[in-house]
Amino acid sequence: MRTYRVERPEIALQDEPVPEPGPGEILVRVHAAALNKRDLLILDGTYPLPARPGVIPLSDGAGEVVAAGPGVTRFGVGDRVMGSYWPRWHDGRLRPELIDQPGCTLDGMLTEYALLGEQAAVAVPEHLSWAEAATLPCAALTAWVSLTGGQKLLPGATVVTLGTGGVSLFAVQLARLLGCRVIVTTSRMDHADRLKALGADHVIDYPATPDWGRRVRELTGGQGADLVVDTAGPATIDQSVRAAALYGEVAVLITRDATSDRLEITNEAYASSLATLRRVFVGNRAELESLCAAVAAHELRPVIDRTFTDPHAAYRHYREGSPFGKVVIELAPA
Amino acid sequence: MRTYRVERPEIALQDEPVPEPGPGEILVRVHAAALNKRDLLILDGTYPLPARPGVIPLSDGAGEVVAAGPGVTRFGVGDRVMGSYWPRWHDGRLRPELIDQPGCTLDGMLTEYALLGEQAAVAVPEHLSWAEAATLPCAALTAWVSLTGGQKLLPGATVVTLGTGGVSLFAVQLARLLGCRVIVTTSRMDHADRLKALGADHVIDYPATPDWGRRVRELTGGQGADLVVDTAGPATIDQSVRAAALYGEVAVLITRDATSDRLEITNEAYASSLATLRRVFVGNRAELESLCAAVAAHELRPVIDRTFTDPHAAYRHYREGSPFGKVVIELAPA
Amino acid sequence: MRTYRVERPEIALQDEPVPEPGPGEILVRVHAAALNKRDLLILDGTYPLPARPGVIPLSDGAGEVVAAGPGVTRFGVGDRVMGSYWPRWHDGRLRPELIDQPGCTLDGMLTEYALLGEQAAVAVPEHLSWAEAATLPCAALTAWVSLTGGQKLLPGATVVTLGTGGVSLFAVQLARLLGCRVIVTTSRMDHADRLKALGADHVIDYPATPDWGRRVRELTGGQGADLVVDTAGPATIDQSVRAAALYGEVAVLITRDATSDRLEITNEAYASSLATLRRVFVGNRAELESLCAAVAAHELRPVIDRTFTDPHAAYRHYREGSPFGKVVIELAPA
Amino acid sequence: MRTYRVERPEIALQDEPVPEPGPGEILVRVHAAALNKRDLLILDGTYPLPARPGVIPLSDGAGEVVAAGPGVTRFGVGDRVMGSYWPRWHDGRLRPELIDQPGCTLDGMLTEYALLGEQAAVAVPEHLSWAEAATLPCAALTAWVSLTGGQKLLPGATVVTLGTGGVSLFAVQLARLLGCRVIVTTSRMDHADRLKALGADHVIDYPATPDWGRRVRELTGGQGADLVVDTAGPATIDQSVRAAALYGEVAVLITRDATSDRLEITNEAYASSLATLRRVFVGNRAELESLCAAVAAHELRPVIDRTFTDPHAAYRHYREGSPFGKVVIELAPA
Repeated sequence: MRTYRVERPEIALQDEPVPEPGPGEILVRVHAAALNKRDLLILDGTYPLPARPGVIPLSDGAGEVVAAGPGVTRFGVGDRVMGSYWPRWHDGRLRPELIDQPGCTLDGMLTEYALLGEQAAVAVPEHLSWAEAATLPCAALTAWVSLTGGQKLLPGATVVTLGTGGVSLFAVQLARLLGCRVIVTTSRMDHADRLKALGADHVIDYPATPDWGRRVRELTGGQGADLVVDTAGPATIDQSVRAAALYGEVAVLITRDATSDRLEITNEAYASSLATLRRVFVGNRAELESLCAAVAAHELRPVIDRTFTDPHAAYRHYREGSPFGKVVIELAPA
Repeated sequence: MRTYRVERPEIALQDEPVPEPGPGEILVRVHAAALNKRDLLILDGTYPLPARPGVIPLSDGAGEVVAAGPGVTRFGVGDRVMGSYWPRWHDGRLRPELIDQPGCTLDGMLTEYALLGEQAAVAVPEHLSWAEAATLPCAALTAWVSLTGGQKLLPGATVVTLGTGGVSLFAVQLARLLGCRVIVTTSRMDHADRLKALGADHVIDYPATPDWGRRVRELTGGQGADLVVDTAGPATIDQSVRAAALYGEVAVLITRDATSDRLEITNEAYASSLATLRRVFVGNRAELESLCAAVAAHELRPVIDRTFTDPHAAYRHYREGSPFGKVVIELAPA
Repeated sequence: MRTYRVERPEIALQDEPVPEPGPGEILVRVHAAALNKRDLLILDGTYPLPARPGVIPLSDGAGEVVAAGPGVTRFGVGDRVMGSYWPRWHDGRLRPELIDQPGCTLDGMLTEYALLGEQAAVAVPEHLSWAEAATLPCAALTAWVSLTGGQKLLPGATVVTLGTGGVSLFAVQLARLLGCRVIVTTSRMDHADRLKALGADHVIDYPATPDWGRRVRELTGGQGADLVVDTAGPATIDQSVRAAALYGEVAVLITRDATSDRLEITNEAYASSLATLRRVFVGNRAELESLCAAVAAHELRPVIDRTFTDPHAAYRHYREGSPFGKVVIELAPA
Repeated sequence: MRTYRVERPEIALQDEPVPEPGPGEILVRVHAAALNKRDLLILDGTYPLPARPGVIPLSDGAGEVVAAGPGVTRFGVGDRVMGSYWPRWHDGRLRPELIDQPGCTLDGMLTEYALLGEQAAVAVPEHLSWAEAATLPCAALTAWVSLTGGQKLLPGATVVTLGTGGVSLFAVQLARLLGCRVIVTTSRMDHADRLKALGADHVIDYPATPDWGRRVRELTGGQGADLVVDTAGPATIDQSVRAAALYGEVAVLITRDATSDRLEITNEAYASSLATLRRVFVGNRAELESLCAAVAAHELRPVIDRTFTDPHAAYRHYREGSPFGKVVIELAPA
């Protein structure tokens, strides 16, 4: 079978035998896999968790069960499944002994046939294509846990999202499912109409409004946002805190960028909001299942920027192409 | 001014002087008031909290502030407000010392001019008429707290409501704002289309399906409902428990009816669900404010069955007319 | 090895080969096992979940790991472990596909050597003897989840427990760890001193005080208890609701008894409390681990009534002997 | 009466008439008042909320009700009360319109007779002296809300506190009431015995262990602390994050110090903990009442460093004297 493996700073195609599922394992014919920023960091050697040399890349993928090992009860041949970002973290709180991740310390999904523990797989909502299903495990789940993992966010509450990255677009769509108002900041006002079509109530041009935290307070009658999904970290965290309500929340997804290795929050920012900073690092299998229930009930369609059959082209586009939505690799029959 | 007062088993019209607001009070020109089942029980002398003789009836009403006493800061003349069901319960958990209710132990809203403590009033969402605003304090808030006061209910979760009473119709509408799937039971399948128009995904004919708890389990892939809003009490509680997911919830709104003074839940019902029974008795001012934020953000329109100018006719219709939606009394200028 | 199996209405000793651990399994030399009421119901054929014919009885036991199958990482040979009541329910919310229980649908702990999935085992706190460790998985965990699984119970809150059964005694001890005040009802005032020594602040003689719910309200300044751990069901539930604070909680552990197959709660009881009835059915592995952390930190010692080496004698004593504390069977070397 | 007023950078004694309680107000003969760091910042002009010129200083005080205005129901003459830090914030979440504080934007407690709204007062636990009662409203409540306002903290969980300031000492004592293990960092190992007597399980010498976050992880079997009560802000926040468990919490009480106006958290710190940073700014009246219930149930005694009758001496000692425990001013009869 065709399998890609990390040979930093690139990925390399290999021809390998199809594996056999052991006890509790399923063999999945992968139809699509999706890229996330962490996959670039892993190639670049800057991801916080050191990757296993020669690992199969990508955490996100979806495919069909083609064989099941002894003792498997959750799935059968023919079932459509996606892999979980944390195969060993099923529910409750993350613990140090559960931190293995596919595409990093475990083999990932950029391969024709992937072996998954049955506890690490989740059923694909029926209405989704393979490409769409492949986008959920990391980016959509991160957005979902940002919205649902902290304080109860009721209809009529206000959520702020930043820009047009994969997590942010999911956050706009999913916040609407919760009945929330959504304010989006962007430097690309040419995207404003697409953002509004996805569910944004207001779009703020942040280069023109550097103190956008104050603008969010104005748009919320002085109260501030109930939740800010901060996907940019060092560059935005201070304004995110200013934007948040007294005892509101900021979901913190990124803790460094190209120019800074730290978050800095000024005393002045806290003077207006007292916000809780809740760190979110994707989520567990139970949360992926509840995301899928929401996606299925609302027949939500993920935003896909482009699909590729050549993984190298996909990586290149993801890194350089300013995609609006997810970048997907289809693993077509050979 | 025209004021009605409880003279059991009727209400009686009085001509009284317009009161003056004291410190912290506002005077409200009431434009509309709405009926709830408790208002019948109070006339019948069967409400759990003994009513003050000669009290002005009705907890629910909305109107315009026409005067403000010393020290008032929350509202000014011209503001549109509704009264809170529990004027002294502002936030957090109810305590015995806070249980006064208008239309029962305190004067209520069936009067041209009502005095409210400013802490007991909440601003009316802009898009609502007076009649619509008058429906929120008891029935809509009961539905809202049923949905939002317990376990987090996420989009894709399933809510069951019973019949076509005021609370149940609000529960259908509000559950949709939370992104939930809604299953409604009814004996009036001629109402099925209206229920679906409000947001019901499934309507169960319960006289034809007496074991409707099992039907709910089938419709949810064997898992059961995440929440049942039980508005009937003795007659339905056992099926409600059967309908609920393992460790799901039943919001219990009624604890007796014409034929029974108690809830009975069989061991057999618990064998399939282990549901929590969460008693809900309307809600506090903070919850009324969050309801109003949701209603405003979605421009939700309450379902009004009929409006009356004659309160006696309104009471009669509410008691005998099988209304679909709220029954409202408009207090037109004399 | 010596193994007992259910041959209703008795247990029967068998001589069987020691099993081999498969992938992910550990072999445990059981040193002690403990009895719970459900073990009598299983023998009597009245347990809600039908037992597998010939199953090895008892959910609760503790022992030493003597062999580990392929892929085991959580434990090694020599580790001291106890089994989890729900071997497949690790965290989060119970689901229908996870309901297998040892001593019922799965082989249990009344055997010299038990095979456990490594995910179904939890480390024994160091200070506990084998007999003490064997008491935790069902009774102590039920008490723990009653106390910790619902509303936050803060130091200074009041907990009510009923009688001197295994769960109730643990509830007294564990409620003290949370800093709560504890009120115990009993018909055995000769036990009052032992209950106070365990941590009870007040002991109510309930035969002399049939309206003990009112007495609890008096003892709490009219507010009622924050939590009632109801271990008796039909006979006590109405008073438990009366004892609870407005929007307090009743943990419901039993839903039938010898004379009734249902819970009945009167409208009059709800008039004073609006309590949530939260059904508790033991708990998951994460909760067992947090219980063990609390037991270890405080070096809490379970109350053991008697230990037996003859299981038949132990069953007889548990059924007929009115034990104060747990009844344990020691599986001494042959 | 003797009243002190802020005349920056000092306080000045005035002779003023005793005020009369208006509607809903009580007049309190203040017996003791306590100092907090914010009181120094207010004198220095560096407190985030600008103080009213000439305001009576100090948020914390306790005394006896000597008169009650019209409509007062919560208290009567002779009752012992303390004032709430946020007189208008009674329950639920803080909102911008509720932020007035005594000793800052409202008159405070350094006066013989203080007027309080009855909703802003809380009963003093019986076992406390006036001096002890005066220490609760700010420092103890801050510690209480740090411990109880976020994730459920169960017995056996680990709490870290920093140093020997007023909030930290309360945090040690109160964490023990919750059954938690407590690790304290200090530069004053000569205080280790007193800290252990208060309830500390471990004392870390942080000048000798600058990477104390790692030491906390070692002391918790690699898991990290469930909660760090960070009372130092810029100087400690990065280590606090390192000390916290995966998805543990850091209660953030201070956001600047003499050398920095911001919190900085490095990406490396987050690599080991993903902790939530929960900002805590004292708490509401309901939380003060639950604190008092806990203090009363356990007859907890606040740690008082010294009491003074001369307020100037008290301020001087608080600023320069490195107190271990609270500094209290007694307002003795003239």
